[in-house]
Parts: sequence; C-alpha cells; structure tokens
Amino acid sequence: MRTIDWVDDAIVLVDQTRLPGELTYLRITTVADLIDAIQRLAVRGAPALGVAGAMGVALAARTGEPIAPLRAARPTAVNLAWGVDQAAANADPLARALEIRDEDLSACLAMGARGADLLAEHAATRVMTVCNTGGLATVERGTALGVIQTMHERGVLAEALALETRPLLQGARLTAWELARMGAPHRLIVDSAGPFLLARGAADAVLIGADRIAANGDTANKIGSYSLALGACRAGVPFLVIAPETTIDLATPTGDAIHIEDRGAAEVVSLGGVKIAPDGTQALNPAFDVTPADLITAIVTDRRVIRLDRGETP
Amino acid sequence: MRTIDWVDDAIVLVDQTRLPGELTYLRITTVADLIDAIQRLAVRGAPALGVAGAMGVALAARTGEPIAPLRAARPTAVNLAWGVDQAAANADPLARALEIRDEDLSACLAMGARGADLLAEHAATRVMTVCNTGGLATVERGTALGVIQTMHERGVLAEALALETRPLLQGARLTAWELARMGAPHRLIVDSAGPFLLARGAADAVLIGADRIAANGDTANKIGSYSLALGACRAGVPFLVIAPETTIDLATPTGDAIHIEDRGAAEVVSLGGVKIAPDGTQALNPAFDVTPADLITAIVTDRRVIRLDRGETP
Repeated sequence: MRTIDWVDDAIVLVDQTRLPGELTYLRITTVADLIDAIQRLAVRGAPALGVAGAMGVALAARTGEPIAPLRAARPTAVNLAWGVDQAAANADPLARALEIRDEDLSACLAMGARGADLLAEHAATRVMTVCNTGGLATVERGTALGVIQTMHERGVLAEALALETRPLLQGARLTAWELARMGAPHRLIVDSAGPFLLARGAADAVLIGADRIAANGDTANKIGSYSLALGACRAGVPFLVIAPETTIDLATPTGDAIHIEDRGAAEVVSLGGVKIAPDGTQALNPAFDVTPADLITAIVTDRRVIRLDRGETP
Repeated sequence: MRTIDWVDDAIVLVDQTRLPGELTYLRITTVADLIDAIQRLAVRGAPALGVAGAMGVALAARTGEPIAPLRAARPTAVNLAWGVDQAAANADPLARALEIRDEDLSACLAMGARGADLLAEHAATRVMTVCNTGGLATVERGTALGVIQTMHERGVLAEALALETRPLLQGARLTAWELARMGAPHRLIVDSAGPFLLARGAADAVLIGADRIAANGDTANKIGSYSLALGACRAGVPFLVIAPETTIDLATPTGDAIHIEDRGAAEVVSLGGVKIAPDGTQALNPAFDVTPADLITAIVTDRRVIRLDRGETP
C-alpha cells in the first residue's frame, strides 16, 4: 500500500482523515484540491508532504495554477517547500516527483535498518513514539515507525507504546492502525502518560520523526515530542530522531528560529465532532514543539547517525 | 453552589459526568449508589472525596451497609479513606461529616490566600494548571483553582492556561467551565503543549492539586502533572502543589510506595462515546503520576507553606 502515488495523470493518496474507520483514496487533479487535502491533513507527515509538494508542481504544469500557495500550505514542515522547489527547478517536474517518491522509499528502508541497529546496541526492545511516522507519513514504511517495523521484522520488538497525539489523534487513529496491520505488539497511551511511564521503566527508548531539524540539532516535531524528551532525559533512556536528510535545514541555525504553526481553537475544543469544552472556550494550539539538541541522543537519517550526545551536529 | 452537601438525610452532589453540558444534581441515599458515583467520577477530586467518604459513613449508619468497599472505591486518593475513617471513629458520623465539609471550605479559603500571596512574591500573573482542582473537586472554591480564583478576585490574574487532561478531560469540561463562571481570563491547551508553552514563556507558574503527598514531598496527582513539573523545572518557573494537610500521608515514605490506579483501556480508546482507535486496541491508562519532590518548589496547605526548594519536607 502506498500512501501517495501518481496514477493516470493524478495524485492518488490515502484520505487519512477517514482512518481508522475506512481506507479510502482521494484522486487529486488540481493544486487547489491538493492544498485543501494538505490543510485538512488528508495527507500529512513531513516526507509524504515532500512528495505531495513535488507532485503538486507536476499538476500545476498541467493546470497552470500558481505553486506559491502550495509551497506555503503548511508553515512548519520544511519538506513541503523542499519538494515544490525540487520539482519546480526541474525541466520535467513529474520525473523529479517520481524520483523523490522512489528516494523516499529507499530512505525509509535505510533509516529503518540504521535505527534498529542503534537500538540493538542499546538492547532496546520496548519503544515509545508519538504522532504517526509510519508508512502513512511517507510513501511506505516511514521514519520512526519504520524503525519499529524493522525491529518487528527482525523479531526483536517486545512492545511499542504509541501516544495518542492530541489534538488530531494521529497516534490513536493512524499509528495504532499501522501497528495492528503489521502485527506488532503495541499499546496506546494518552500523551501526558509518556514521561511518567518512562520514569517507571515502561520503555527502553523513545523514537520520534521530525518536521524540521535546525543546524544545531534542535528538532521541530509534533507537539508532545519535547515533553517525551524531558521524560527520556530524566529516565536516562535514549531519545532518537529518525528523519531523512531532507528534513535537516542548515539555513535555520537553532530551534528558536522555527515558526510554530498554531492551528486554532477548533481542534482543541472538539474531538471527532464531539464538543468537549464549554461554548466560547478559547484555546492555544501549537501543532509542533521544538526539542533542544541537548535532549536528543542521536539523529538517524538515511545516510548517517549524528550522535548529538557526543557533540556532533547535522 | 456546593459540589457536595447533606440535605434531608441524603448526599446531594453535582453530577460531574454531565458537565459542561448540564448542571444536574444526584440525590444519594445508599452506600452502593455512592460507590457507583465515585467510581464513574460523578464526584471526584481528593477533598470532595474526603467529604463523600465521611457522609457515606453517615448513610451506612442508616442503611446498615458495610463501609469497607466505600473506603476502597478509589485506591490513589488518600482523602476518601481518611474521610471514612474520621466519620467511623466518631459517635455521630454525620456530625463529623458536616464538620469535615465546613473545614474543607475554610481550608480552601486559606490555601487560596496563601497561594496567591506566594505567587505575588514571584510576580506571577499567568498560571498553568492541570485537571480540575476547583470548587468541583472540593465543597467550594478548590485547591489550585481556588488560588487562581483568589488571584482573580484580587485583580491580578492575567491568564490561566488549563490543560484539557485526557483521558477524562476534567480540564476541558470542568476547569474551563469554572473559569468561565468566575469570569476569569483563560485558554485551553492539549496536555502535551504544557511543557513546550512553558519553554516559550507562556506562563509564570504551574499550580497543581494533589491526591497524595508522601513524607518526602513526592506528590501523586492527575497524570500529566509530572511532565508539567519537568517543563517548569527546565523553564525555571515555580511549580506549586496546593493541597490540604489531610492530603499529606506521612505513612507513605516516598512516591515509589504510592499505588497508581490503572483505569483500563476504555477511557483511552474512546472519547465522549466516539471511538478514536481501531477495534481491539489495547491501552495502558495510569490515572495518576508521581512528581518527585526535587521538581516541586513548594507545597501550600491550609496551614503552611512547605518550601521543598529550601530543603523543607512535609
């Protein structure tokens, strides 16, 4: 199953807003529809957004739509703008988009193997993760969840603990669904239980993906990553960031320079159509946070392991 | 409005499972019904459970029901067992229960004043809190939220940031409702945003209640308290526990000895009747966590301020 692909002059992608209830695909033929799909998170996950951005340029070449609004459809993920730029700089945007799709697949396989090797060094068999960083965040397999899949394929995964990931519940809806599909042992937890369960020894390592990695190693990722990093540091367990090289943004010196998207109150005050707070309740809704480099043990990419704990930087 | 009271030979309490949609009261005349109300969290909050436990003994004196199951209805909160024991040791259980109710009210007023004084010393006007520690957790006013109410009455509250408090959303449902009723400026956030917003300077202090405080100051409270404490420590803002003296359990030497209730998977995999994870998903659901004393600045009780940051212990 591919999360995003190019079929008969159109982008075909899994509508992630319908999971885990239904596995349905959207066929997208205009940039406007692609922007809509990106903004309502029908497609999400930094690497998948890179492929979407590149394929969007191929659509624009057909429809004549502008690509600037696509490039800016999600402000935090560097990959979306990167994918747009890559395809736009190519004489044949579609050829470059398909290449990015294939590179994403190889990158996920490489990250999975390298991450699982590193965890084997730490004798880690029980891992905790947040958001969805699986096949649904990429073309197939994924970043952090791809490492977990590799561990499972190697027969060394004792358990994955998945944070539900409020407000949009990508962990409960998507990660639990992917773990079940791969037959991997797993349990779901509420986000705020992560740090405490680490304190009580419930996991040997924390694995997260990344939306943007600054030059000093500070990492922007789904809200909740930072508190897991604080919990892992206090518990003395490794905290690993799994992301392709394209997520590293050397133009951003530190995390302080990363713009954090506030997605508005509606996602916080309701859930799956159910209102959970009194009428008129205001909310702050930072969709991402920044984990400072000093809390990160290592960044595992498709090309290397960057040991932040040994003073290395991207 | 009293959250729990004794009226015409019955316990009358706000049904908190119906808030914020409806303000309705339950009239309870048997211990069995009281245990049911406690277990489904129609009444919750450590101090309110103390009053409920004591009034339950007064009910038992009328119905002849045993009180041991009531005493054990919630394992983590020390106040429930304390309230049962206090009333059971008295020749007139009802008289002792009414006294506990009145003491709770005075205690909340005292904690509110003392906590607000301490925050004034820190020039704190923007505070963050988790779960519901307001009038709904006590008879009136509350512990941590009682301090916030006192700040608001004094005209010094700039903003309260309330964590929604998954899985049961006491922050979104109850705290936001109480803050709106008192006209206090507030915004709601998802639990995992708390530590990051502290890192970005969004609040000057964190205030929590407590379900049980060990002799060394380790504090059991709603899940999520520990990650806020980690976040407050890293951000350098004060982290205060607001709780009556009755919450201090000198018989428990440290937090390691505190039993943490797991409330089962159902609360995690669904929300307000909406299923949010695939069928068959397993979950871990620790309802409380333990914040180590070294992360706590001070414990504010109805009688004193215990400055853990200066080496004092309860």
